[in-house]
Formats: sequence, C-alpha cells, structure tokens
Amino acid sequence: MLIPEINHAHTAMIPQQQKARGWKRGFIVVKPNCSVQSYLTPVYALQAAGYPISAMIIATLQAVSGAGYNGVPSMDMVDNIVPYIGGEEQKSEEEPHKILGRIEGDRFVADTSIRISAHCNRVPVVDGHTACVSMGFAGKKPSRDEVLSIWKAFTSLPQQMKLPFAPAEPIIYREEENRPQPRKDRDADKGMAVVVGRLRECRVFDYRFVGLSHNTVRGAAGGGILNAELLYRQGYLTPA
Amino acid sequence: MLIPEINHAHTAMIPQQQKARGWKRGFIVVKPNCSVQSYLTPVYALQAAGYPISAMIIATLQAVSGAGYNGVPSMDMVDNIVPYIGGEEQKSEEEPHKILGRIEGDRFVADTSIRISAHCNRVPVVDGHTACVSMGFAGKKPSRDEVLSIWKAFTSLPQQMKLPFAPAEPIIYREEENRPQPRKDRDADKGMAVVVGRLRECRVFDYRFVGLSHNTVRGAAGGGILNAELLYRQGYLTPA
Amino acid sequence: MLIPEINHAHTAMIPQQQKARGWKRGFIVVKPNCSVQSYLTPVYALQAAGYPISAMIIATLQAVSGAGYNGVPSMDMVDNIVPYIGGEEQKSEEEPHKILGRIEGDRFVADTSIRISAHCNRVPVVDGHTACVSMGFAGKKPSRDEVLSIWKAFTSLPQQMKLPFAPAEPIIYREEENRPQPRKDRDADKGMAVVVGRLRECRVFDYRFVGLSHNTVRGAAGGGILNAELLYRQGYLTPA
Amino acid sequence: MLIPEINHAHTAMIPQQQKARGWKRGFIVVKPNCSVQSYLTPVYALQAAGYPISAMIIATLQAVSGAGYNGVPSMDMVDNIVPYIGGEEQKSEEEPHKILGRIEGDRFVADTSIRISAHCNRVPVVDGHTACVSMGFAGKKPSRDEVLSIWKAFTSLPQQMKLPFAPAEPIIYREEENRPQPRKDRDADKGMAVVVGRLRECRVFDYRFVGLSHNTVRGAAGGGILNAELLYRQGYLTPA
Repeated sequence: MLIPEINHAHTAMIPQQQKARGWKRGFIVVKPNCSVQSYLTPVYALQAAGYPISAMIIATLQAVSGAGYNGVPSMDMVDNIVPYIGGEEQKSEEEPHKILGRIEGDRFVADTSIRISAHCNRVPVVDGHTACVSMGFAGKKPSRDEVLSIWKAFTSLPQQMKLPFAPAEPIIYREEENRPQPRKDRDADKGMAVVVGRLRECRVFDYRFVGLSHNTVRGAAGGGILNAELLYRQGYLTPA
Repeated sequence: MLIPEINHAHTAMIPQQQKARGWKRGFIVVKPNCSVQSYLTPVYALQAAGYPISAMIIATLQAVSGAGYNGVPSMDMVDNIVPYIGGEEQKSEEEPHKILGRIEGDRFVADTSIRISAHCNRVPVVDGHTACVSMGFAGKKPSRDEVLSIWKAFTSLPQQMKLPFAPAEPIIYREEENRPQPRKDRDADKGMAVVVGRLRECRVFDYRFVGLSHNTVRGAAGGGILNAELLYRQGYLTPA
Repeated sequence: MLIPEINHAHTAMIPQQQKARGWKRGFIVVKPNCSVQSYLTPVYALQAAGYPISAMIIATLQAVSGAGYNGVPSMDMVDNIVPYIGGEEQKSEEEPHKILGRIEGDRFVADTSIRISAHCNRVPVVDGHTACVSMGFAGKKPSRDEVLSIWKAFTSLPQQMKLPFAPAEPIIYREEENRPQPRKDRDADKGMAVVVGRLRECRVFDYRFVGLSHNTVRGAAGGGILNAELLYRQGYLTPA
Repeated sequence: MLIPEINHAHTAMIPQQQKARGWKRGFIVVKPNCSVQSYLTPVYALQAAGYPISAMIIATLQAVSGAGYNGVPSMDMVDNIVPYIGGEEQKSEEEPHKILGRIEGDRFVADTSIRISAHCNRVPVVDGHTACVSMGFAGKKPSRDEVLSIWKAFTSLPQQMKLPFAPAEPIIYREEENRPQPRKDRDADKGMAVVVGRLRECRVFDYRFVGLSHNTVRGAAGGGILNAELLYRQGYLTPA
C-alpha cells in the first residue's frame, strides 16, 4: 500500500512478497483508500521532521465520485448529507498504520503509534475529499511557524526523481481562512498536491487543520500512475 | 443563555440581572448558537446521569439557512463545501461553559470542565445542522446500552410542564447506520427534538456519535418560543 | 387515465372496460405521468371556459424523486442538469390527448386538438416538477385578467364533492415575478394544488406561464388517493 | 454587439459610430447576453445555409455564475430552481435581432424576421447555460441530416483567420441522447465551442435541439478576447 511521498521504501518488500507467494514475476502494489490522502502526507511530514503524533480525530467530507457513478443516489445528496460511508472509517483508522510502517530485516512492521478516530461523511461535491483533523503530538509540539515551514519544505523521492506525475510541492498551504475548498483547490498541481489550510491551536489536542485532495486524481488514477512511475524508476517494472 | 431542557434553573438569575442593570422590569434571555443544539442536550443528559465528560472534538456540517437568506452565495455551495464559518468555532467551544454553569448563591459560575474543540463547516443543506462528536468521560465510562437508556429516558422541565412547544422526547435515537440525515430527520417532533445516531466506540476517546437539530426551528424561532413558554410558566412573563 | 379535476366523467367508461375484458369486477384506472399535472389543469380550465388551445411548447424541470430512489445518480446532479428523461417527452405530448378526450356513446374519443411539444429536463430538486409553458389559442384569446379570473374561480367535481384529499383551490396563482419555485410552493394545499405564476404575453404564441406541482404527492400517492376517493363516491369502489 | 462567428461584418460600422459620436479614436463593441450564445450560432449557421427561421421558443437553464459571486443566494439553489432572471428574457428575445442585422450603405438594419419567446430559469450549476430550443423555418425545412451537416461544416472568419481564441469547430454536435450537459460539455474546445445535441422533430414547429455554452468563458471573458482578436486583425485595434 503505497503513497510514494511517504513509504517509497516499502517497495523493497516486493521480492519478499514474490518469494512468499511463489511468484517468479509480478507483484501487488495498491494505493490506499482515497480519503487517507487528504491528511496523511502533512502528518507524515511532521513525523519525518521529528515530531511524532500520538492521536488524531478526523472528520471527512467526501465527494460522491468516491463511490462510483452509481454509488450515491441524488435523492441522498440534494439538501442532504449522509454521515456514514460503509467500511470507510475502519480503513481510515487502520491503513495509516500500514503506510507508516517500516521494514525490519525481511519483515514488515506496522506503526500503530498514532491512534486514529475517523468520522466519514458523504457530501454533495463531485470530486475532492476534505478532512478536518485534530492532532496531538507524542512529545514536543512544534510552533505554528515550524509546522508551516516543514510543510512548505517537504519533498520526497518522487520530487527528487522528478517523476512526471509527481506534484512539484506535495503540500500546498493556503493562508485564506476559508480554504481549502473542494471545487477551488482540488485541481492544484493537476490534482496531485494535498492542499492544507486553517492550521490553528486546538483546545483538546495540539493543532487542527483542514486537508484536501482530489480523490479521483491523487486518490485513484493519478496516484496509480505515480506508483507505476516510481516502480519503473526503481526497476520493478520493465516495458513489454 | 437558555436551552430549557438543560439550564431552566438559570432563569433564577433574572432578578439579579435586573438589579445589576437597575431595571424594574424587563430582562434579557438569549438562545445559544444554533449548532450547539445539535449535541449539547445528549451530552448534558449523560452528565446529569452521573457521567461527566472531560473533552469533546466536534465537526459540524451546517446548513446555509444559519447564515440568513443572503448569507452564503450559491457560488460557494454548488459542488463545494466551505470549511469555515466566522466566529462559529469559538462560540461552539465557549457557550457550553455558560449553558452548563450553575448558580451559587447570587453568583453565576461557568462550568469549564469540558474542553471542546470545534471544526465548523458550511454544506449545501437548507436546514439542519449535523455534528460529528467524539467525547471522553472524566471518570467512569458508561456502557453503550447505558448511554442509549439515558438518552431514551431523558426528559426535563419543559416535558414535565408539558410546554406546548416542548418535544415529547427531547433526544430521539435512530438505530440505522446512516442516520441522522438533515433532510430526513430535521423535522422530528416538529423540528424541536435532537436526533442522534451512530453511537460507537472511539479509538481515541470513549464514544462517538452524530447529532442533528433543526437550526431554524429548535435553533432559532422554535427555541425562542420554548424559552418564552418556560419564562411565562415560571412567572417572569406576564400577558400585556 | 384520471385527473379528477379534469376528466372525472371518464369513469363512466369503467363498465365498458369490464365488459371488453370479460371482468365481473375490478377495473383499471391510472394516474397520468407526473409532469403533466404541472400544467394540464390550468390549460383545461381555460378550455372549459371557452378558450380552446391549439398548440403548446413546454419545457419541464423535473425533480429527482420522479425517477425513484436509485433513479438518478448524484454524479449527474451535482453542478449539472440532464436535458433528457427517457420516454417522458412522448408521454407529455400524448397523455393530454387521452385526458382531454370525451365519451361518445360507448366509445372513447381522444382529443388531439392541442399539438404539444415537450422538452424534459432533470434538475437537482428533490420534489416538485416545474413547467415553462407557451400556449396559443385556437380562436379568440382571453385577456390576461380573464385568464387569472378563470384560474382563480376554477373548481371541479372533487371540490364540489368535498373529497378529503381535494385541494380547496386546484389552481393557485402567485403574483411574485419569481414564483412558483419547487421548494417554496410544492407543498401548497398539502401538495395537492397546482401553483402557477408568471402569466405573460408571448412573442410567438399567445401566453406563457410557469406551472408547478408536487410530483410525489399530487403526481403520485396523493393523486392516487384522490382518484380512489372519487371512485368510491361514484360507487365504483365498495369497502371490503 | 458582436459574436465573431456570426456578425464579424458589423465591425464595419465602427467608423460610422465614431463619426456619429464625434470620436477621433476609440469605439464601443460589446458582447451579447451570455445565454444567447448557447443557441444563436447553430441557428445562424442554418440561416446562412439558406434555411431562414421564423420563430423560436426557448427555455434556458442558466448557471449561477451568470449573476456574479453574490448574485444568487444558496437558499435559492439548494433543492430549488428559480424560474425568473430579471431582464434576461427581453434581452434573449431582442439581442438576436441586432446580432443578425445587416449593414445597408451606412445604416444598420436590425433583422426582426425571427420571433423569439424565451423562458429563463436559474439552476444550481456553477458554469454553463443550457437552452432547450424549438424552431420553425420560414420556408423550406432541411432534413435532419442536412442540419447536422451544416452544423458540422460550419466555420466562419475567426476560424479562417485562425484567431488564437477561436474554437476549431464552433459547433460541436453530440450524438448521445442525454447530452449536452453543463458539467460535462461546457469546457469543450477550452470553453469556446457551442455544444449541441438532441436534434429531433417537433410536433409544433419543425425541429428541437439543446444547446450549451460556457457562460463565463464563451459568454464573457473568452468571448471578449475573441472580439479583441478579431478587431486587432481587422485593424481597429493597434498596440499601444
């Protein structure tokens, strides 16, 4: 389960996977649930900069395209929202443990250090999942300016490799108090960037922010292409 | 600031208010911010039953009528949500301290024992504010069945006085996994009940639930009438 | 095919229908397509008052409930309209000929004197079909005041019989320049009235107006009940 | 009032306009009302091919961006449509007479040969005005195939001049029975083409079709640029 900006190193498990399944060639790499993409890269950037996070409470406002063309009847999306998406909360709470895990020798070890609670809502938006995130740090809490600097400076292997589909800035912070908004921000960097805003103190945990990503680009087709570009450059894929 | 099911006793401060302002007659009673109504009665019911709450993280999905007829341009509400409502988060975090406060002698003492963090979002819904609530108890945690029993049994002075605008059941719990929904549930008991659903464990705090109330009925006109009915029955209002 | 305010006399064909099908008891009475209800009663009222109409061009803006719960995916109704509803235009053009027909002896004769052209569109509205109608009279054209008087005065057998589901005024005219609107007008007289507005001259035909009716009340369940009430009072239905 | 594909010849009136107003330099060229763009180019193409039209009845479903950011409150566009846009119907009925007019000597003569009746509706769509058009020919009626061929072949001066903003095909016909749709078709050829569909017989006039254009691109900013490109190439504009 791959988000190239976060766990590109996990592709090293591919030979292990092939061996375990008795495959000579071929392997399985998947992209995570699309709503996770709206907030996990900003969270990972902070962890990678030395600020581990211990708890997050997330409420998502997810686009209808996430359920497919026939997924959500318009009777549910005119003058309405639905505060439930089957299976989505569990995935949002468990997939980050895999994505943030690490390889020890030939074993994969999940990272369960962040406890996550997710409320997943369906809203009348075509594309773009929004996430309202409250987070608490395990130890020292960075200043607001530090958080913004870390996000601004964040790049990873796809940027360094200049993969064609990689966003130039994986995390774009918007200063306006009412952004990100799905229709206005989902297409940032061809829909491949995560757009973040509203970083502010939290009276319960340490910080709150709003994250947004394009669920059918970054969260699906575009994310799949970026995965393939990474695997190709790492030598796991060879042209026919 | 009055929610009759919660702090009807606060009207006892009226003589104090009149004295402090040198008024012979007349007084000021207000209704709280409409989004608070979606979750504070269920929370109060638990506290009143002996389960004090210490922390809550809330994400609201609020209807456009809350901002008035010209409040939200349609350009912001077609294929979009806005993750910001000016002043709303602070009100959501501070008003409960007043509503849950108590009178000691002739003094009013706010109850700041619940730390609250609110994310307020505007969504394309005409009426009905939805709240996704995660809550942690200060001490002992009730079982899920106990919570449901407390909510089901909850009534208060407006019900006992049989005030005409009082909902028969102030808290209605719906068992369906995808409820409450604004268009389908906002009119419960003429729009005066709070409709609650999705009570479930939380991996970060103790429980999560979704609350909903009709912001222009319970949260505004109807709530104002209920306040007036209470004040009349308590003898603070006399017919002209 | 019955709209009780228009063709209540057609129930006289029931014995004929039973005979033709060899039925001793039982018969089939249907309600017309729901969008026809938005404009046919006002048109009939004019014809009944001596102003036959020869041509109508109609564009409908129809609610999603008309297609059933799963009928219209939300992907088609967020930031979109669909200028097509399968089979609807033909029904809108042909059903009025049956509803406006007459009984001659034991024969039913359709009235094809109005040529009708319909454009049917699906719009993101839960309930309430709106119709923009342009109409030309076969002969003399009534004045605008006459049209309004005819509509205001119109009642029919269901009103005279005081059928419980019959709207007191089958045609309600609103003077505001921007009405009728589906969310604001569909529930007029419990959803059983047709709400009309914007009567104005037409540069191509004689007059234009906008009609609206509640498609799942007047156009379905409520219309069916009114049919049953009429049949019961006419002696075609007997309690079990 | 200029639609470059239709009345590029009208710029010849500029010297006349300058003379009449006593201007040595400078002139006024405007773009027409944005909803007219959705259907006038296809109609003009037929007239230019020798099939003059005598009457049109049009119902528009217009996007909220046409009214500006604050133009339409969301209270009117959630579960609703508004069957009225101030001044729009008159403009839709009269502007085509100017656009289709001709220059005789030094006089401009409006072409009032098409009688037009327009119903203008506001719908919850961000961008893209849709028009349902019924039209009758003054004389001979082309076959359906002829209409399609005329539209497919239609180009005009902006295409011949290869103006940068000119759409390659000014009229794009879609064969699917449920197109054009605003969200799916408004961006055709960078939002500069008119997308047409559903050409079919009409029981009242000769043909019906649905037209769509992007109101803030073709109908505003992009249309203005195309006007400027034309004027520059015709020598009316000189760089500063």
